[in-house]
This record gives sequence, structure tokens and C-alpha cells, in this order.
Amino acid sequence: MPYTREELRWNGWGLRAQTFDLHGQDTAVWDFVRKTIGLAELPDTPPKPLAQTTLPPSELPGGLVETLRQALDAGRVKTDDYERAFHAMGRSYPDLIRLRNGELGESVPDAVVYPRDEAEVQAVLEACADVGTAVVPFGGGSSVVGGVEAKHGEGQTGVVTLDTTLMSRLLDLDPVSHTATFQAGIYGPDLEAELQRRGFTLGHFPQSFEFSTLGGWIAARGAGQQSNRYGCADEWLVGARVITPAGEWRTLPFPHSAAGPDLNELIAGSEGTLGVITEATVRVHEIAAKRDVRAYLFKDFEAGAAAIRRIVQAEIPVAMMRLSDPDESHFFGTFKSLIHPPGTVEAAAEKALDVAGFGEGRCVLMIGLEGDAPAVRQSIARTLAAVIREGGLPVGTGPGKAWYDQRFAMPYLRDPMLDRGVGIDTLETSTKWSNVPALYAAVRHAIRDCLGPNAAVLTHVSHSYSDGCSLYFTFFFARDLDDELGQWTKVKRAASDAIANTGGTISHHHGVGTDHAEWFGPEKGALAVDMLSAAKEKLDPKRILNPGKLLG
Amino acid sequence: MPYTREELRWNGWGLRAQTFDLHGQDTAVWDFVRKTIGLAELPDTPPKPLAQTTLPPSELPGGLVETLRQALDAGRVKTDDYERAFHAMGRSYPDLIRLRNGELGESVPDAVVYPRDEAEVQAVLEACADVGTAVVPFGGGSSVVGGVEAKHGEGQTGVVTLDTTLMSRLLDLDPVSHTATFQAGIYGPDLEAELQRRGFTLGHFPQSFEFSTLGGWIAARGAGQQSNRYGCADEWLVGARVITPAGEWRTLPFPHSAAGPDLNELIAGSEGTLGVITEATVRVHEIAAKRDVRAYLFKDFEAGAAAIRRIVQAEIPVAMMRLSDPDESHFFGTFKSLIHPPGTVEAAAEKALDVAGFGEGRCVLMIGLEGDAPAVRQSIARTLAAVIREGGLPVGTGPGKAWYDQRFAMPYLRDPMLDRGVGIDTLETSTKWSNVPALYAAVRHAIRDCLGPNAAVLTHVSHSYSDGCSLYFTFFFARDLDDELGQWTKVKRAASDAIANTGGTISHHHGVGTDHAEWFGPEKGALAVDMLSAAKEKLDPKRILNPGKLLG
Repeated sequence: MPYTREELRWNGWGLRAQTFDLHGQDTAVWDFVRKTIGLAELPDTPPKPLAQTTLPPSELPGGLVETLRQALDAGRVKTDDYERAFHAMGRSYPDLIRLRNGELGESVPDAVVYPRDEAEVQAVLEACADVGTAVVPFGGGSSVVGGVEAKHGEGQTGVVTLDTTLMSRLLDLDPVSHTATFQAGIYGPDLEAELQRRGFTLGHFPQSFEFSTLGGWIAARGAGQQSNRYGCADEWLVGARVITPAGEWRTLPFPHSAAGPDLNELIAGSEGTLGVITEATVRVHEIAAKRDVRAYLFKDFEAGAAAIRRIVQAEIPVAMMRLSDPDESHFFGTFKSLIHPPGTVEAAAEKALDVAGFGEGRCVLMIGLEGDAPAVRQSIARTLAAVIREGGLPVGTGPGKAWYDQRFAMPYLRDPMLDRGVGIDTLETSTKWSNVPALYAAVRHAIRDCLGPNAAVLTHVSHSYSDGCSLYFTFFFARDLDDELGQWTKVKRAASDAIANTGGTISHHHGVGTDHAEWFGPEKGALAVDMLSAAKEKLDPKRILNPGKLLG
Repeated sequence: MPYTREELRWNGWGLRAQTFDLHGQDTAVWDFVRKTIGLAELPDTPPKPLAQTTLPPSELPGGLVETLRQALDAGRVKTDDYERAFHAMGRSYPDLIRLRNGELGESVPDAVVYPRDEAEVQAVLEACADVGTAVVPFGGGSSVVGGVEAKHGEGQTGVVTLDTTLMSRLLDLDPVSHTATFQAGIYGPDLEAELQRRGFTLGHFPQSFEFSTLGGWIAARGAGQQSNRYGCADEWLVGARVITPAGEWRTLPFPHSAAGPDLNELIAGSEGTLGVITEATVRVHEIAAKRDVRAYLFKDFEAGAAAIRRIVQAEIPVAMMRLSDPDESHFFGTFKSLIHPPGTVEAAAEKALDVAGFGEGRCVLMIGLEGDAPAVRQSIARTLAAVIREGGLPVGTGPGKAWYDQRFAMPYLRDPMLDRGVGIDTLETSTKWSNVPALYAAVRHAIRDCLGPNAAVLTHVSHSYSDGCSLYFTFFFARDLDDELGQWTKVKRAASDAIANTGGTISHHHGVGTDHAEWFGPEKGALAVDMLSAAKEKLDPKRILNPGKLLG
């Protein structure tokens, strides 16, 4: 069952009932964070409650609310403050700053609708198109790039956010073809529960898994943590149904087709600007009999990256390879030791590693394997051989298990940081292997250059391909409480420019949204943007769908 | 080096100097073919020489030829009969019938140009757009779906065919990122020679490999025989440059990107209707240390298909799996035994197989493996286990070797068949596994229903995916010499309708061209076609590019 909106934080991550467990080591952890970002003390910066947040009045063109109430039913057309605030924007750093400070400006939907089927979606789009009101498709709302911000286009009046989460049924499972068809508003846990009780999995586990939807994964071309095995959204998508203001658009689920361009690849990455994804047929897998995650240490980032490259280019089947750079390895190593203090054996081992040359520059690589037992055994041996050739050291399954258990928890740490004046944001890109060192250096430099020497910049490689890999940057910094958005805009721009100027894509898996729109055009080229824009106008002639994202 | 046009057949397959070697068993082979299609004797139906073929006069708008000669140079703007006839159409069955009968109608280019760089391509497109003359991009010209037929659109005057094969250089090989960038007019053998001398391969070996180009593979979304390992064209394409009448369009080579739709997937399958593909960056592989092709027998098609499905769904790394149905297994078995008569041991083995139940319904599956030696050994064991679970019988590496040696030769058999009144055509599709039996039956039925009980319909599965596979149909028949095109149109329509009505795509890897254009619209849907058409008009406002194919 979908979450009720009241169970979820309107201005933070996930379930209200859940927080990040620091195992009672709060003082030590916050002291570490404080020192890391170079503050004498952490200020108290709590969020404003909703009651103190002024929302603009709900103003839609005359008759639209009535039309919507007739098309759906009154109970599924919401105009109360909680629904409007919850759906105002996504969960990016600037979104959270604005939500917490009660400064939503005009970015609040005038109404939120919850259609239950495609006919209702069509009716909403037609009603809004008739009066020139923007429609923002909204799944879990976990976008970290401004993908669901309530905005209208020039000359448009009002914004209706279309929440898809009541469309969440499994429609078909084909156990012979290993495909499943779902309504696209289904949340990750519900989707996996439906599949796993039938022996299957989609295997798509982004960090947002618990609070994001199938349609959102597709719209943003998302990648799960095990994308080496299960593929990114554009790879596991086989067919879709999309409701547009001009009518229904569907792609048929073929294993491969040479009948012209693959339009699934337009739907993947469309970010709600071409239509509302209402159904998707996806490739599923039998649940792997065996799962294995083990960790390896490298003396430096280059050696670890070389091991990943060797493994992926040798086509050794792996589910995941995740390499933290020295800063990230050190940060999480320290963090972990604070909440789970090491015993004497661990301390001795730590010293031995230092002596063996796995010191300051050391990096942790986690390799996840899934499959039947013989295949996993074979891959353990083959990946180990590649690791050893690059000077890596196996350190067992402990770190992998710890990571696995915590893999959806990290976003919960953001809210308490924001409560204490700490800024945290992430950004990501991908590039070819030969360009990884240059891009890594350029983006780190850009972030540090803006935020000062005390900002912590942690980097990991988490998705790899024969021709290159992703680079994912997490940075912590002391917030400039006088100009929080200005501070962020500066670093975001510097990092994005560095990416664009150093051969990276503006996003590997977060998407474009509002935050990357400026870099989207140059990356695709003006002619391509014109072409996509002309395509959009056939589906959405009045350009009411998700204004300000992707195609403007 | 590209072939000279004079080395190649203008009205048949491949090199004039090469023919299919029947090992002196011509009488036996033709007797077998004759009996197979139920003819008392094979008529003599030789092709008309070029001298007896009337071409329409070369008529282009005033000044265009002069403009082209200035933009390129006079020697690379051809209007002679050989060049015009060679480039009139591709190498489909109706193409060959028309070429051989000297009935080209209006489908002859008025000029053929050979640009050497992108500036020259741009100049050709602009000159032709200025005067409303159609441009047909042409690589190897091996299309079997009418993809390069010289046609102009309504209101347009004349056709210029743009031959890309002088643009054939390797531009970059990145040995770290395993990518290579080529000019797109390079032929298959030249491309592989460039890569292999550097230790790499693209691994794309369609049956047309020797006489098709990189740009053509991409434009048609082609698949090579080892697509399980190396991927289809849309999968190994990383970036491209496309020259359009509106200017240059390029995609940047990222391993994966969430920056909106993947436009490589529009270029792949564009069939020359969006622009001329001039450069492509592709994923390459180190040459596999070990290659292994071995054959297995199954008692029926279902068991063989189940083995393929089991292997691909278990993600066992294979390069190729190719399963012939009983009719194809029998046909090629007999054919081979005619040109290489079996000894007493083979005859005895044959009898034993019959007794063991591998009789009339028996099917041959060939599995190709590539990789390093341990990986190949592992896959031999794992595929064998899957084969045995479906009742399959290993019969060694002999049949695989024979197939491998002959894998590009089969098209050479078509010309001598056409010389003897025998019709032969192929068509192909793909569908999900659960629908394979229905689609297989429907297409076979449709073909037989049109061509009568004596037509031979041979089917194989040659590309497989976790969710489904391709079905490839080859059919031989006695030509209706009074209405050759009418006979073909009827069977083509019946088979295509059967595909469309039974859950198949109109093409797995041949493309759309003129022959499938009628089924392309319904497959994609009217709204999608409108959208693609609007996109095209941004690149090609006067719709001069390859009229009549794909988008009309």
C-alpha cells in the first residue's frame, strides 16, 4: 500500500517515525562532523513548522477545481496546506533549504490530484490544457535536481500536481518471458514485494528506493545500486504507456526491434515533460540464489579504479562495484568507528594496514555478486584475481554487510545535519575511463574552490561500464546562514561547469530537472533541443507538462 | 580500402569474382532444390545485362550538378549508367527482381556523389535542399527492406544518392576506454582490420558484414551474429556525428547519462531520414583469447528454444545461440550432405540418432562462446547442463566450424537460384518468449498459405534476450514468372500482417525501409509517428532525406 502523505516528512526525508540511529554516540559523531567542516560549534538551525510557513493562496482558473472534482472525485482533489507543501518540490538541497526556511515562494501547487486510472489522468491533462494550467507529474517526489518543483510556464495560470501513487497495481507477470507490467505509481518496496512473493526481482535499488516510484525511476533514467547486473531504468524498460495531453502513447514490449528509433529511450529521461507514465513493462530476474558482498582495500584511487575497469572489461558478471576515494573511505571509516567503536583486534589490524602501505590514500572497493552459487563462486575467484593484479587486499565480507544493511538509511542523516547548520549535497556524472582522473580532479577542485578548504568532498565510483564509469560526489560544508541559496548556487554552478568542460555528462542518474537545465542544452546541442522540443509539442501542444524542467 | 563499384555486382550479391562453391555437386544440389519447391524442372531465368536495361535520363534541377561538382570535385559526382544502376536500390528480393529484369522504373538516382568529409556532405545537403532534390544516404547498399531505393518525395525533383564509402578512416582508438571512433562509411572488413591489428574487435558480424558499413549498421539498428556478446548496433553505439540539412548534430560519448532522452537511440534506426551519419564512436572489445562453437541436437523446436531461454535467463555468457527449426535443420543437413557426401560412419550415426528419437522433428542448436579460456570452459559446462536439462544431445564442434566458415557465403547462393526461377526471401521479427510458439506458427502459416504447399519455410532463432528472441524465416518457392512482384507482395503482406497481429515487431534487425513502412506506423502508433515526424522536420525541413522510408 502507498504511504499516506501524513506518514511522510513534508520537509525532509522519509517516514516521520524513522531517524538515523547513531547508537547513542551523538556527541562523538557531531564533534567529528564539526571538526571535519572546520566549525568551532554547530549552530541550531531547526526547520520552521508548517503552521509558520506562508503558502501562496490556491488560485486556479475559474471552474478548474470543479472540473477536476467531477472527473476524479472530490476526495482526490486536494488543496489543503499539507498536501500543497508536501508536493511543492523534491528533496534536493535547495528544496530542503526552502522547505525548512518556509520560503517556498510561488513554487507551491494550487491543487494536488490523485487519479486512479488512465482515463482520470487524461481528464486531468485535458482540463488543465483547456485553461492553460501547468501539470507536474509526481511519484515519490524524491528528485534531487528540482524535477518536480511546482512551476508554471509563461502565460500559464496555476499548477496542478498529479500524484501517481494511487496507480500502483501489478497488472501482469509473465514468468516465461521474465517481464512484469505495473502501474507506474507503485513505490519501490511494494513493487519488490509483489515480485518477490512470485520468485522475481527487478533489482532496482537506488538510495531513494523506499520513497520513489517505478514511473519516477523511468522518467529520470535512474540507476540502482546493482546496475551492473540489473541495468539502469532505460535498460530494463521494455514497454510503457504514457498519457499525454494529445492522447495515449504506448510502446510495445519487444526484446529488440529495428523498427525505427527506440521510443522507450525517449520515455526514459522524459522527466514528466512528454506525458504521465502510467504503466511500464520491465525485465525481471529470478531472485538470485546467492548474494555476496565483499570488500577490498587499495593503496590509491587509481589502483581501485583500474581493478573495476579490468573486471568490467573482462565481462566478469558482478552486481555492483563501489569504490570510495581516500576522503570518502576515511570519512566513513571514522564515522563507523564512532558509532561502533573498534576493539583491540581491529585497532591492531588498522596499524598493520598502515605499515603495509594502506595508509592515508587507501580506498575501499565493495564488490557485490549475485547469481546461482557456482556462478558467484566463479566470480569471487575472477574478481579477486583482478583485485590482486592491481595490488588490492581482500578484507572480507564485514564492510559489505554493514553497507548493505545501511544502504537506504543515509538520506535520513541529512535532516539532523541540516538542523545543525551543516550543508550537504551530492552530484554525479559519468565519463570514459581515460578521462576519469581529469574529471575527478576538476570537480573536486571546483567544489573546494567555492566552499573553502574545510569542506569535505567525498567521491565514489558506483556504476561501471566497459567504456567508463560514474563519479559521485558528496560534500559537507558549513552553511552560510546569511545566503544559503547563494552559497549553493555558486558551488553547483562551478561543479556543473567543471563537469561540462571536462568531458562529463551533467547527470549519470539523477536527471536534469531545473538544476541542470542550463547544462542540458549545451550537452545535447541546440539542434537536438529544437528537435526534442518539436517532438514535445506534438504530445503537449500547450506545453503544460512540468514547465521549467528539461525542455523548458 | 573500399571496393571499387566495378568490383561489385550491380544487380546481385558481393564481388563479381566470387560465387558460392558447390564443390562440383551442382546437379545434385539443383535437383534437391527443384524437388524441395516442387518443380519438374528449373527454368532458365538469367538477368538482363546493364546494356539492355533502360535507365530514365538523369535530370536534376538546373545548375545542381554544377554546384555539386564545385562543392566536391567533378570526379566524385557520377552520372554514368553503372553508378546509377548500382545505387538504384538495395539487395532485397523485389530489388533483385527489378534489377535483373531491367525494370527499375523511376527508382534510379540522377547522380551519385562521393563526399570525402563532413563539409562536403553538408554542401551536398544544402545544395539539394535549395532546389528540392531528394538525397539518399548509401553505405554498402545491402538493405533488404528497400532502405536505399532512389525515390523522391512529392513535389521534389530528382534524386542524388550520397555514397559514404570514401569516408572510411579510423579517427581514434582509446585503448583504456575500449572505444573507437570511425568515419561511418567504412566497410565491415576494413573496420575489423583496423581494430584487430590493434588487438580489438567490434564483434559486429551480420551476414552482410563484407558489403555493409558502420553507418548502415547504425542506421538500420543492425544485429551481428554474435549479438549476445557484442550487442546490437544501438547497444554498442556510444556517440555519433550526423550531418543534417539544418547543420551538424552530435551526441557525446558517455557510458550512461540521465541527461534526458538518449538521442543515440534516435540515430540508431533513423535509416537516413534524419541525416547522414558521418562518424560514430563505438564500444570495442579485446579480441577474445578463445572461441568455441559447438552444436547440440534437440528432439523438437520447443526443447531447443527452452534451452536458449534457460541459458539467457541464467545469464550464462554466450556469444551466439542459433537454433534451426526442423525444416531448416533438415534442409541444411541435406544440402551439406550433398556437397560433402557423408561416409559410412556418419551414415551409421545418422541412423542411431533416428532410433534415439532425434528424427523428423530434430533441431540443431549452435552455441558460440568467446572470452578467455577459463570463462569459455565454464560456459561450456553451464550451457551443456542447460542443454541436457531440455533433452539435448551434444554433437561436437564440427557443424559449428562448418557454419562459421560459411557464415558470409549464403547470400552468394541467392543469385544462382534467381538464375533458375527459384524465389528466395527472408524476413524476421522478435517477440517475448511466451509468444514465440504463436508467432512462429502464424508466420509459417501465412507464408505457406500464399506460396502453396511446396514452398520451403525454414526458421531459426538467432538473437536471444532474457525476455524473448528473434525469429528469422527463409523461404524458397517457385517463382510466378508472369507476376514476380505481385507474388512477392502477397506473401510479404501476409507475413507482415501475421507478425503485426501476433505480437511481433515488424523487424528485429533488417529495418523498415519502404517494405515495412506500412507496418511501422501502426507499430509505433499515430501519435509517435507525428512526434518523430515533427522531430525530423527540425533537422530536414524540406524532407529531402531518404523519402519513402520510415517516416515517409
